[in-house]
Amino acid sequence: MIDLRSDTVTKPTPEMLQAMTMAEVGDDVFAGDPTVNAFQEKVAARFGMEAGLFVPSGTMSNQLGIKVLTEPGDEILIDEKGHIFNYETGATPFLSGVQIQTVHGERGKIRPEMLQNRSRGEFDWEPVTKVICIENSTNKGGGVCYTEEELKAIKDFADEENLRVHVDGARIWNAIVASGVKASYFGEIADTISVCFSKGLGAPVGSMLLGSEEMIRKARRYRKMWGGGMRQVGLLAAAAEYALDNHWKHMEQDHKNARMVAEVIAGLDDFKVDLNVLETNILMFDTITHTAAEVLEILDKEGVAMIPFGPNTIRATFHFQVSREEVEEVISILKNNFH
Amino acid sequence: MIDLRSDTVTKPTPEMLQAMTMAEVGDDVFAGDPTVNAFQEKVAARFGMEAGLFVPSGTMSNQLGIKVLTEPGDEILIDEKGHIFNYETGATPFLSGVQIQTVHGERGKIRPEMLQNRSRGEFDWEPVTKVICIENSTNKGGGVCYTEEELKAIKDFADEENLRVHVDGARIWNAIVASGVKASYFGEIADTISVCFSKGLGAPVGSMLLGSEEMIRKARRYRKMWGGGMRQVGLLAAAAEYALDNHWKHMEQDHKNARMVAEVIAGLDDFKVDLNVLETNILMFDTITHTAAEVLEILDKEGVAMIPFGPNTIRATFHFQVSREEVEEVISILKNNFH
Amino acid sequence: MIDLRSDTVTKPTPEMLQAMTMAEVGDDVFAGDPTVNAFQEKVAARFGMEAGLFVPSGTMSNQLGIKVLTEPGDEILIDEKGHIFNYETGATPFLSGVQIQTVHGERGKIRPEMLQNRSRGEFDWEPVTKVICIENSTNKGGGVCYTEEELKAIKDFADEENLRVHVDGARIWNAIVASGVKASYFGEIADTISVCFSKGLGAPVGSMLLGSEEMIRKARRYRKMWGGGMRQVGLLAAAAEYALDNHWKHMEQDHKNARMVAEVIAGLDDFKVDLNVLETNILMFDTITHTAAEVLEILDKEGVAMIPFGPNTIRATFHFQVSREEVEEVISILKNNFH
Amino acid sequence: MIDLRSDTVTKPTPEMLQAMTMAEVGDDVFAGDPTVNAFQEKVAARFGMEAGLFVPSGTMSNQLGIKVLTEPGDEILIDEKGHIFNYETGATPFLSGVQIQTVHGERGKIRPEMLQNRSRGEFDWEPVTKVICIENSTNKGGGVCYTEEELKAIKDFADEENLRVHVDGARIWNAIVASGVKASYFGEIADTISVCFSKGLGAPVGSMLLGSEEMIRKARRYRKMWGGGMRQVGLLAAAAEYALDNHWKHMEQDHKNARMVAEVIAGLDDFKVDLNVLETNILMFDTITHTAAEVLEILDKEGVAMIPFGPNTIRATFHFQVSREEVEEVISILKNNFH
Repeated sequence: MIDLRSDTVTKPTPEMLQAMTMAEVGDDVFAGDPTVNAFQEKVAARFGMEAGLFVPSGTMSNQLGIKVLTEPGDEILIDEKGHIFNYETGATPFLSGVQIQTVHGERGKIRPEMLQNRSRGEFDWEPVTKVICIENSTNKGGGVCYTEEELKAIKDFADEENLRVHVDGARIWNAIVASGVKASYFGEIADTISVCFSKGLGAPVGSMLLGSEEMIRKARRYRKMWGGGMRQVGLLAAAAEYALDNHWKHMEQDHKNARMVAEVIAGLDDFKVDLNVLETNILMFDTITHTAAEVLEILDKEGVAMIPFGPNTIRATFHFQVSREEVEEVISILKNNFH
Repeated sequence: MIDLRSDTVTKPTPEMLQAMTMAEVGDDVFAGDPTVNAFQEKVAARFGMEAGLFVPSGTMSNQLGIKVLTEPGDEILIDEKGHIFNYETGATPFLSGVQIQTVHGERGKIRPEMLQNRSRGEFDWEPVTKVICIENSTNKGGGVCYTEEELKAIKDFADEENLRVHVDGARIWNAIVASGVKASYFGEIADTISVCFSKGLGAPVGSMLLGSEEMIRKARRYRKMWGGGMRQVGLLAAAAEYALDNHWKHMEQDHKNARMVAEVIAGLDDFKVDLNVLETNILMFDTITHTAAEVLEILDKEGVAMIPFGPNTIRATFHFQVSREEVEEVISILKNNFH
Repeated sequence: MIDLRSDTVTKPTPEMLQAMTMAEVGDDVFAGDPTVNAFQEKVAARFGMEAGLFVPSGTMSNQLGIKVLTEPGDEILIDEKGHIFNYETGATPFLSGVQIQTVHGERGKIRPEMLQNRSRGEFDWEPVTKVICIENSTNKGGGVCYTEEELKAIKDFADEENLRVHVDGARIWNAIVASGVKASYFGEIADTISVCFSKGLGAPVGSMLLGSEEMIRKARRYRKMWGGGMRQVGLLAAAAEYALDNHWKHMEQDHKNARMVAEVIAGLDDFKVDLNVLETNILMFDTITHTAAEVLEILDKEGVAMIPFGPNTIRATFHFQVSREEVEEVISILKNNFH
Repeated sequence: MIDLRSDTVTKPTPEMLQAMTMAEVGDDVFAGDPTVNAFQEKVAARFGMEAGLFVPSGTMSNQLGIKVLTEPGDEILIDEKGHIFNYETGATPFLSGVQIQTVHGERGKIRPEMLQNRSRGEFDWEPVTKVICIENSTNKGGGVCYTEEELKAIKDFADEENLRVHVDGARIWNAIVASGVKASYFGEIADTISVCFSKGLGAPVGSMLLGSEEMIRKARRYRKMWGGGMRQVGLLAAAAEYALDNHWKHMEQDHKNARMVAEVIAGLDDFKVDLNVLETNILMFDTITHTAAEVLEILDKEGVAMIPFGPNTIRATFHFQVSREEVEEVISILKNNFH
């Protein structure tokens, strides 16, 4: 089976497992795991942030970011396609008592003009708007990335309106590769960043929240309260660090693989795809002659797994464990079964 | 000053005050206030609901309705103009841990086709959609009302999708007058209804949540927890009951007054108003040659108060304490100052 | 029926009702009710606090006080008999996300030595102790009061431990009369004070939170969010003000009435009462030869209502609507039915 | 350094690491990790429960247990020494909106007679008591265990009062060894059980909640919401399973080691220890001639780490990575430095 359902399905490599077994560990609840501590500093430094906190999931790092940037009764602005709004089980209202005001953006990206007249809080009967959340690359938006100019515009607008910026960087590694924006630039425009090691990078478990020392100190308390304080977690940090040091460089190839498949699809009458918006490892395409379900069934019989993103939309995701040979096989299967 | 800012500014009449002073009262925290108990039964019966609960505000009755219909981690659907989303200080996420999914409706009203593919909750990572909230009449939407057919369509859709219906009836009295939908019909299509006595009806304080006996029993506990359990509250219930029995009948005149003013505005080049959407006591109109702020300043000097609802939009609200003479004076002022 | 169940059962007098009907009112959600505004200033000034906020209930003023003094994950210290712990439907964890650490005090009062080694929060796994709550007089503790020395000791301890002080003054008017501590002294030792007008003072509805201007500004937002923002609430404030100006002076008599009855009970073999701890209008006594239920049944037949506070404990409460004649009748009934 | 501070400081053994690297893994957010799934079934079966859920920490499994057994506004009963009350950052009020009513038990254990007249909820102003939480063995109570009779008494009382039972089994493995109560017996008396693999068993990360299928289904949603949904988590489950299969048998020796040291301490005049209450791997003893801090400093210089549990109380904890030789060395050091 060639599994293109998600980049969360990668499995640890033997080298990564070896890195895990060699890690020096301690009790991270006491902040006593040297591997975790060093890794937190390393990632924070790369993004130009003061401090980092290793957590079990991207949902936790996103929600901790929102928690430390808000108080109950506040509101955040986010694209209606955002992961935080769609795929975190309604955690923001539950954990932060914070309302979500969605914005109708473009492929999951928002621009300042979409945020005009959205901030509020002057009156007792209004929630207080506090944070702009952006996702980079956008998952549900099809893997598109913010340019440096777009990020700067968001930051400038946020400053004018006295808002803070949280970056959901579940796939920020792909975004950095594709957009050319430096990691350290995110530190300049964001108050908190959530980065994930268990998607395209291929670590088994783990995300990190980045922010100021004060925010991370506060986030540590909530991490413990929410059940995210773990013990000899250096094992997981070692795997994540291995992934960062060794798998990031493969992402350019993942993006090329996505484009190769997309170009074939673009040439088939059964499908429709916009090559201009394909930027990273997430390929979204529409079905014309069949439903998405029918196409997925055909592919499944041929040994290829993708997932539906609507009645006539399909998502295929590429990562370092999808080889060039597998990409070519997918292309053959598409050509043989569709026209 | 002719105050058209809101229908919340009405003041108790001498007759209403007399009704208050004659009320037999008791301690409502112990469910021992006879005036409150009888009034709850009376209003519930009128709407065909099992039980009612008198509360200090419409925000409390709305939020209690959502509370008893959901559990933390759920989601509600509501028009993006909805009072619950805009003017209740973000109470829904705070008090219920519930996410709001807004819908882009029409003048604050939603139809089933706008709700297609919005329900979710099959997967662990999704909030569970539980409730459709409708507001009738719509405040921010300009006072428009749902027809019986529209209400039925919402109810049918809710049944198909296993959703519950909450009606924010802050101005349901106006809606009943203007739409001809009977009060008891709302009991057929809604699981919970919030009705308010302190807007166009003119009571000084008070709203009521209507629902099943079990829901109201649960709501009583949360009312106490949130600080809404009051003592000799029969005084307020008596005022509300007086308002219902004596002021409701004036609403048809309020709607006529709104239309009289609207028709004059429609004839002036300085303004633009859509007479087709004027249904109740809320008159929204746009300014063309001036900004809303400039118009409001001119009116203020002439002794008329309205409020802005955007840079070029103004709202005027009518109620039983705006007399026919005052309406005519407003018309004169408009004609004299604008063309 | 002579109703000694609670001082919450008082009913508005004709004079109070007249004060209500003459009140100038406005929309308090817009802070536009002159009667409310003036009354908030008057009460705040009396206690030496910057600002006040009129709310529907003592539960709301207590919970708003805790809300503005804490953040989620904090902890408060309170006597295990405290109203906030026992009779507010678990509001503190719900509305503030705050843990309650109870202290085994004496008749509902706590002293610094009972609070030794209770503060915590240095470690990520501990809640952060933030507030000492004291109740004065103590309801479940039998109406006893703090002396000025005791209050000073609590304040000094709080300062040493960097804790804040909230005073639940549901019956602070009785406490001021009985203890001789001035109202303004509470402003010196407390960060927030909740005072109630609907118990012994006899107003139908209403409590007030007192605190700094910043805290009250914040509390206004939460009052609105929790559904406590009311409209022409000057009616209720006028009744409360009338009660404060006219009924407070009767409390000394209420305390004397309680003592008269207590002295009779002390002389009966069927009962046991500690006259030394009877300080205000709450009389607690134990039954020896009968159960509390049996005694209450006998009294009920004779036309006297009290309430049980345990299998062998009874509470009788006195207020300005229990006349001297009724007190004498209660005494006769006790003497005739018990020995 | 001989580290007796806690049994959370154990480090993964080479054999455990090898088990991790050989684990077959999948994406557990999709319930697709075969190692996790099998391990959940295995542990649930051992305790006679329907289902299990692997989570990052004991705090998360405790809090998920409370979450699925309560609704906001409820209350739980727990010994005042309980981990849930003391060491989980106030998570219960925050995550469940639930109040904690503490009980003054004995060495962290509670008996039905201590719970008399504690349940409440009949009235709107009371929280609703729902759950009895017991900890076995008791951490802060000194590692003592419930007997089968004591557990049965708790269960019978809970049934009578319509309460549910949650067992915090952070050290249930020690308790089973020391008390002889079978694992399956806990399934008979508990509604939910939290068990931990990262204390005396020595796994690096991981706890499990056990309960009915319906409760676990609900807990899965909250796990995701709180950020505890992890990806290729079979790695951690494999380590935990290895620990359970291979380290549990060592616990009897850990308990003997604790007793050996305790007996030496009992013979020294500088200390006081109650040998009758030493049941498992947690040794609590008091200092007489020195403060705890002074004793710990002396031990530290000699290469032994313990931790203070009060000004004159010290805790030493034993686990499978404290060898017999180290135990003998600790004994020598104690004899040489104290008398």
